[in-house]
Amino acid sequence: MASKSFYAIISGVGSGTGRAAAIRFSKAYTVVLLARKPESYNSIVDEIKQAGGQAFGLTADATDEAAVNAAFETIKKQLPGGKLAAAIYNVNGGFARKPFLELKREELDASLDAAPKGFFTFAQKTLPLLLESVPESPHPPSLIITGATASIKGSALFGSFAAGKFALRALGQSLAREFGPKGVHVSHAIIDGGIDTPWGKDFVANNGIEDGKISPDAIAETYWHLHTQHRSAFTQEVDIRPYVEKF
Amino acid sequence: MASKSFYAIISGVGSGTGRAAAIRFSKAYTVVLLARKPESYNSIVDEIKQAGGQAFGLTADATDEAAVNAAFETIKKQLPGGKLAAAIYNVNGGFARKPFLELKREELDASLDAAPKGFFTFAQKTLPLLLESVPESPHPPSLIITGATASIKGSALFGSFAAGKFALRALGQSLAREFGPKGVHVSHAIIDGGIDTPWGKDFVANNGIEDGKISPDAIAETYWHLHTQHRSAFTQEVDIRPYVEKF
Amino acid sequence: MASKSFYAIISGVGSGTGRAAAIRFSKAYTVVLLARKPESYNSIVDEIKQAGGQAFGLTADATDEAAVNAAFETIKKQLPGGKLAAAIYNVNGGFARKPFLELKREELDASLDAAPKGFFTFAQKTLPLLLESVPESPHPPSLIITGATASIKGSALFGSFAAGKFALRALGQSLAREFGPKGVHVSHAIIDGGIDTPWGKDFVANNGIEDGKISPDAIAETYWHLHTQHRSAFTQEVDIRPYVEKF
Amino acid sequence: MASKSFYAIISGVGSGTGRAAAIRFSKAYTVVLLARKPESYNSIVDEIKQAGGQAFGLTADATDEAAVNAAFETIKKQLPGGKLAAAIYNVNGGFARKPFLELKREELDASLDAAPKGFFTFAQKTLPLLLESVPESPHPPSLIITGATASIKGSALFGSFAAGKFALRALGQSLAREFGPKGVHVSHAIIDGGIDTPWGKDFVANNGIEDGKISPDAIAETYWHLHTQHRSAFTQEVDIRPYVEKF
Repeated sequence: MASKSFYAIISGVGSGTGRAAAIRFSKAYTVVLLARKPESYNSIVDEIKQAGGQAFGLTADATDEAAVNAAFETIKKQLPGGKLAAAIYNVNGGFARKPFLELKREELDASLDAAPKGFFTFAQKTLPLLLESVPESPHPPSLIITGATASIKGSALFGSFAAGKFALRALGQSLAREFGPKGVHVSHAIIDGGIDTPWGKDFVANNGIEDGKISPDAIAETYWHLHTQHRSAFTQEVDIRPYVEKF
Repeated sequence: MASKSFYAIISGVGSGTGRAAAIRFSKAYTVVLLARKPESYNSIVDEIKQAGGQAFGLTADATDEAAVNAAFETIKKQLPGGKLAAAIYNVNGGFARKPFLELKREELDASLDAAPKGFFTFAQKTLPLLLESVPESPHPPSLIITGATASIKGSALFGSFAAGKFALRALGQSLAREFGPKGVHVSHAIIDGGIDTPWGKDFVANNGIEDGKISPDAIAETYWHLHTQHRSAFTQEVDIRPYVEKF
Repeated sequence: MASKSFYAIISGVGSGTGRAAAIRFSKAYTVVLLARKPESYNSIVDEIKQAGGQAFGLTADATDEAAVNAAFETIKKQLPGGKLAAAIYNVNGGFARKPFLELKREELDASLDAAPKGFFTFAQKTLPLLLESVPESPHPPSLIITGATASIKGSALFGSFAAGKFALRALGQSLAREFGPKGVHVSHAIIDGGIDTPWGKDFVANNGIEDGKISPDAIAETYWHLHTQHRSAFTQEVDIRPYVEKF
Repeated sequence: MASKSFYAIISGVGSGTGRAAAIRFSKAYTVVLLARKPESYNSIVDEIKQAGGQAFGLTADATDEAAVNAAFETIKKQLPGGKLAAAIYNVNGGFARKPFLELKREELDASLDAAPKGFFTFAQKTLPLLLESVPESPHPPSLIITGATASIKGSALFGSFAAGKFALRALGQSLAREFGPKGVHVSHAIIDGGIDTPWGKDFVANNGIEDGKISPDAIAETYWHLHTQHRSAFTQEVDIRPYVEKF
């Protein structure tokens, strides 16, 4: 059933949303995983292969333009004739919770690097490939962006992080309006809650209530749904949060 | 595969979203269709039955509290032991596009009757049933609301229609916050574009571009996705629009 | 200094925003006060007169179309040749904080009556008068609407109140877009916090911190600013909240 | 009447909003003007002095941290004992209207430099001074930010510009929530329309309709109103647009 000449690329994989998205999309596509360190993708690649899927990882810091460019050159060689069906930007970085007057300019820079700047490079690399896939892709070629509560609310002490996430959302909106009419589906997900990852096991969200942290697999399911939407019914933005989350 | 002791109820069925949602949800549940006239649901019921599903229609004007109450009494009798898994409020009404000073108060009333008032009654009837289903429902019991562009923007000449749709959205948000923590998923869909219905064939949206009108089946697919979301990952609001729609 | 042939009308006066707006606008205009009971405006009228201004009150329930119509007939007789410079809709009603399943339909109706319905009647009466004033009014004729936190957020337990306030905001947006180009300034203020009124003295907002409740005079000052904005620089929406308010 | 020991600082002055704000605030305060080139402020300083006010300009690129730091050192020397009453960030830059795939990364950088980064430096310099002024300032010390349509909407072809403006708004929201309770008023203005500047005379907005471009003096009047709001009634965000603007 899987269209093995089509592939998906996920920038920012680790133990949470990126991993789950890679596994979900690997049921239909070859999956390329980008992360800063091989440790972040090695076990996911293994897991996908053991389940009969195709995947490989590439090491590239999303904020490093040259490294990202090189990764895309490698993809072209590794997947000759491959068509990009979905690209997911799931890079996190620049999170800082602190009084504004204690923030360093580098902390703002880190947030802007991880969010609008890294995404800018990723989108400039993937959009031409997604456009090429429009005529043949089993589903409208998709560019999906992981946002956060801070994408729509600049809370106290979260200014630098929100700056990056707001900017990322702005780019997503603009690209949706420019590339939607060309057949590419650009979608932004506001992940409004803590994610249930192994490294987050000690982080108690919502008072430790069952399912009080978001299942990454559930996020991946919604990303897959976004990807499979008919072009007459594109969703530009969804929010995703635990049933017990205050909002 | 269908859980036949569970049922879905759809208020406001005709040739568009309501019909498509009924057919989509009938793959898993018995479906109850509410409409003002039997002509609106008869052919849908037939279609569902021919495909091997279970469905029946009830005649009730969503703005008529007594009629809606009577319909729910009938459901109880017709589906003894049935459990409500999903309720969809898809009632349209009160649409008027005209200069404000030419609007009649009755036109505002019609919009408020169809939107917040009709939904209020529907929600008061369905929420207790949805709450009862929480422990056993195959997916979190869901209350899904059909909104429109006018749910978030009060355009010139659309004041009375927007008043109803804004109010409906307010209720949806409030119920999501109250009933989410109790396990019921309340979701609101902003349908931002013309719908591709038989009666809309002559209505040319987006210059007649292919897929320039929203496929009702595609909306239904997103409604089904909302219904099947894990409770750790509820979406409260989605927008749905054609790839070529300006927004 | 006051332009005595111009007048302002304020619907919904008591001890808070309505009273303060009446006093502020009376420095420039004759002021007409509408309230359900003479007790609500008598002392304000006295206060304005003692300060050298002109004012009178009329008894009309804002949700009673006939009573409002009669009030406008009276205004025409009492102010022959008068020109309407500003109309403020400050009616509150339908506030209920309770679990949704305990709400009565009448509570929703009360909210819709006080907000979109009452405003609809008020706007249909005042907009023709405001349009007439465009060529001569010292400032762009203005229609100012008092909103609340519930105008933009449907919180748990506030559904019926939010329904009314959302609907009111929708109408305001629509009228701003229709009547702005005709020279009438339609503006909506989101009052996000408790108001410092005599009857609210026992209500402790923000832990009793000084200035933790909104000064009605401060709201009135912002309303006056909105009214005096140049037509090239209209504000459609402002939020107003105490410096210590969480938002 | 002017409190000459208090001063205002405006970053980003030229022929539009910055100039008008400088002149408006000079009626009450000494005004410090920051711009990249002396030509941008010289004539404004002269104008203010001729009207009996106090003003001086300093040359600093808002995106150059060291230059901004030096400017603030100079201010300290030039205004010994001076207290900062209001700071306005009115820097524009990074505007580019072009297809995303033609955008250079430098264009995104320019937008982020002018908006979140430049503002970050400005806010870190001014907030400590504004906090110091809280006990004595004639009005709550204010930090006012100039936004644009692109602050809340990422339109097609405006992605890089919107990224900067969204990020700037995020910072403003966060600072309002952090510093409001400390007595500093942080406010963001969405300027939604073309501005009527000498250099814009040839730019025909709204079909050349009279007052179809925003008067900078009118913007300045609203900024002054924001500054003078009572701390129980702070506005965090206003929109400002011509009466004929579509929105």
